[in-house]
Amino acid sequence: MPIWHPCTQMKDHESYPPVFMDRGQGIYLYDREGNAYIDAISSWWVNLFGHANPRIVRAVTEQLTRLEHVIFADVTHAPAEELAARLLAIATEGLTRVFFADNGSCAVEAALKMSHASWRNLGHPEKCRFLFLANGYHGETSGALGVCGDRLYAAPFAPLFVEQIEVSGPDCFNCPYGRVREGCDAPCFGAMQEAIDAHKDVLSGVIVEPLVQCAGNFRMYPPAYLAKLRQATTEAGIHFIADEIAVGFGRTGTMFACEQAGVSPDFMCLSKGITSGTLPLSVVLTTDAVFDAFYHDYVEDKAFLHSHSYTGNPLACAAACATLRIFEEDDVIAANRAKIDYLHTAVRERFAGYRHTVDIRSTGWITAVELYADPERRIPFDWKARTGFRIYQEAKKRGAWLRNLCDIVYFMPPYVITLEEIDKLADIALDSVKAVLG
Amino acid sequence: MPIWHPCTQMKDHESYPPVFMDRGQGIYLYDREGNAYIDAISSWWVNLFGHANPRIVRAVTEQLTRLEHVIFADVTHAPAEELAARLLAIATEGLTRVFFADNGSCAVEAALKMSHASWRNLGHPEKCRFLFLANGYHGETSGALGVCGDRLYAAPFAPLFVEQIEVSGPDCFNCPYGRVREGCDAPCFGAMQEAIDAHKDVLSGVIVEPLVQCAGNFRMYPPAYLAKLRQATTEAGIHFIADEIAVGFGRTGTMFACEQAGVSPDFMCLSKGITSGTLPLSVVLTTDAVFDAFYHDYVEDKAFLHSHSYTGNPLACAAACATLRIFEEDDVIAANRAKIDYLHTAVRERFAGYRHTVDIRSTGWITAVELYADPERRIPFDWKARTGFRIYQEAKKRGAWLRNLCDIVYFMPPYVITLEEIDKLADIALDSVKAVLG
Ligand SMILES: Cc1ncc(COP(=O)(O)O)c(C=O)c1O
Ligand SMILES: Cc1ncc(COP(=O)(O)O)c(C=O)c1O
Repeated sequence: MPIWHPCTQMKDHESYPPVFMDRGQGIYLYDREGNAYIDAISSWWVNLFGHANPRIVRAVTEQLTRLEHVIFADVTHAPAEELAARLLAIATEGLTRVFFADNGSCAVEAALKMSHASWRNLGHPEKCRFLFLANGYHGETSGALGVCGDRLYAAPFAPLFVEQIEVSGPDCFNCPYGRVREGCDAPCFGAMQEAIDAHKDVLSGVIVEPLVQCAGNFRMYPPAYLAKLRQATTEAGIHFIADEIAVGFGRTGTMFACEQAGVSPDFMCLSKGITSGTLPLSVVLTTDAVFDAFYHDYVEDKAFLHSHSYTGNPLACAAACATLRIFEEDDVIAANRAKIDYLHTAVRERFAGYRHTVDIRSTGWITAVELYADPERRIPFDWKARTGFRIYQEAKKRGAWLRNLCDIVYFMPPYVITLEEIDKLADIALDSVKAVLG
Repeated sequence: MPIWHPCTQMKDHESYPPVFMDRGQGIYLYDREGNAYIDAISSWWVNLFGHANPRIVRAVTEQLTRLEHVIFADVTHAPAEELAARLLAIATEGLTRVFFADNGSCAVEAALKMSHASWRNLGHPEKCRFLFLANGYHGETSGALGVCGDRLYAAPFAPLFVEQIEVSGPDCFNCPYGRVREGCDAPCFGAMQEAIDAHKDVLSGVIVEPLVQCAGNFRMYPPAYLAKLRQATTEAGIHFIADEIAVGFGRTGTMFACEQAGVSPDFMCLSKGITSGTLPLSVVLTTDAVFDAFYHDYVEDKAFLHSHSYTGNPLACAAACATLRIFEEDDVIAANRAKIDYLHTAVRERFAGYRHTVDIRSTGWITAVELYADPERRIPFDWKARTGFRIYQEAKKRGAWLRNLCDIVYFMPPYVITLEEIDKLADIALDSVKAVLG
């Protein structure tokens, strides 16, 4: 087995060999033996409209014989132009420029680089530091790791990157103010305000995952936090970078999470769902103010230099255009509402009151059930027991790909899931939990 | 125009608006007005077998309706398995493991991270520094920039990354020993040996672009340098990381550039041509020794964590499998030889003796003509005159996409170019040069 899989202790394969997937159709994945699995986590949060979606397949197929790829410097092409126009039409106000990259991490890299270099071009090279929220995740290239904090996936590489400045984040699961998320005005923003005040002169910007820290154990927080962040960053004259890579394109119920706070960031990073889980692609949306900082005569040497060989890949752009056309044609955001409610209820019905449930939390399509050894006394399971992992293995046997995150069972299915299938999935989840925990 | 293009001073678009490419066929790109351009630089060195290559189109189309994408943790699929097997079959000896990423920069990030973390797992966390060659290029994410040196595309972002240790590199164009490349035993390796000796205890590895520093003005050096590097790194107990992203897959005449030195690195980074310019994909090939450093019981916390949402994308893997099948079916490496010779001759015939030619250099498919204001007195053109850029604009008018690199006109066409087309391209190049320089 020569393949080294991501996010995996390869020795686990001795006991749990990888499943050989043969095909996908709608919300289902099928292995070589013909077993079906509900893709309950949308293949790492990327798939929106199901596998082998005919509208996306058609768009990519057409593009494939026309122009599969071309250098994107001094060149443009129809799928990129359509995509850029569509993105700006749905983006929050003030976002007017579209910079392409290949994946989420590289969008974050580009945003951080663009933020700092814009200040540099404006005569403020000292503005080179970033604030980030504890428990955040922004990808695993070195720049992205610098805004992730002391995490399992960052610590072993500490000498390789510049650590930025961590700020204790909002986390309604462990609220020190004893508040509930619904309607909360985010008094926890105080820590961010203090950090901004303390580091103001050297700050380039603040990066956050709006509303949900997905890889950070699905910790959630109220829109008010983002509203305060917008105001504080504007006042301090620094950038607000919204990493909507996981939460964008309807995951939180609105097209973009920032909308729920009525704010628009200076940078919005998008990837994952942008192609509905077809191909790697990412974009950084930004403002005229940022763009203008780089717009000079060539000889002034102020261009923004960041390129990848496959920047603006036409096939990925075609998949993204098809994805955004589906949003429009099917009025997806509106149509999703009933399904989202149904999912919340279905999960609550099964897990509320279950003896190991310490929290059930939802934001749009994202619903997480956190399990503790003793919820009442707030005692988690020993991580070495791998409780969540064992539940995930049980779910596989029962036909759902419910990959755990620590001891959290979560649901983040493609939007094309039916109400019946939601029930089926929630049943499998509870059965799998009980198979492990009784 | 909302799109912000890579590697571009956007103000240039006022005078030189981007060309709107409509389709590609073989070595030709066609714009919306129907003008054809020979894709002389293979769309940033990625295209090997021509645009809309039917064998690649077929492979991707088939995969598209079967399984466009699936999470790659705990999952495998046919295109990834075939690709891994095909890569190891052609890789240099000792490379036995295949780690996937999405683009070149991320392969470099993964290799650097893997290198350091392997030493850390083996009890040597102090081995965290890397040597790199002056004038190198390894991508533009923060970790990759750390091994690029003080370059135009790195300097503005200096506070964002950890600078590694630069070593003055081999460069036969400016050889301080007065040698010629052919048959040279690389006395210039001395600087590398000194740097290894000086930093040995803290070194994780050395990263180089074998034989040709493409983005570094196509500086070339002899295989002997790589042979010495293999020996010195082995003796010092540090890793040899070969970034074959630009030179791999036949570009230098052999499948991999390292072959010409008869060496095998500890890490080989591959991307670009791996899908013949169809889709972003990259891999890091490495050894059992590196793999074993991470192979432990889960609870020991020694797994290599580096993932991207689209790691192992089946569509990109399918394009890569089709690419490697073409290499095999058409015996491409052998078939290329005559074309490579023809290209060298065609360019020499036209540019040798031309009054602004200071150097013509070739390694396999890569042929570069460097232009100086006064070659005899070694006086380059003033960079602000943008000589190369103006030549490139002239070439566009004449039907060739000959994007310059500084004042270097270079040829790096798809392998499917014919001898006739090589002549045509070389003619256009000379005409364009003369249109600007007389
Ligand atoms: C919020 C966020 N940012 C960035 C990334 C990194 O994206 P990628 O995996 O495509 O590099 C992810 C991926 O999980 C993410 O969830
Ligand atoms: C030698 C080398 N390494 C790394 C890269 C970066 O690859 P990517 O552009 O896909 O990020 C390149 C791209 O030009 C390259 O030439």
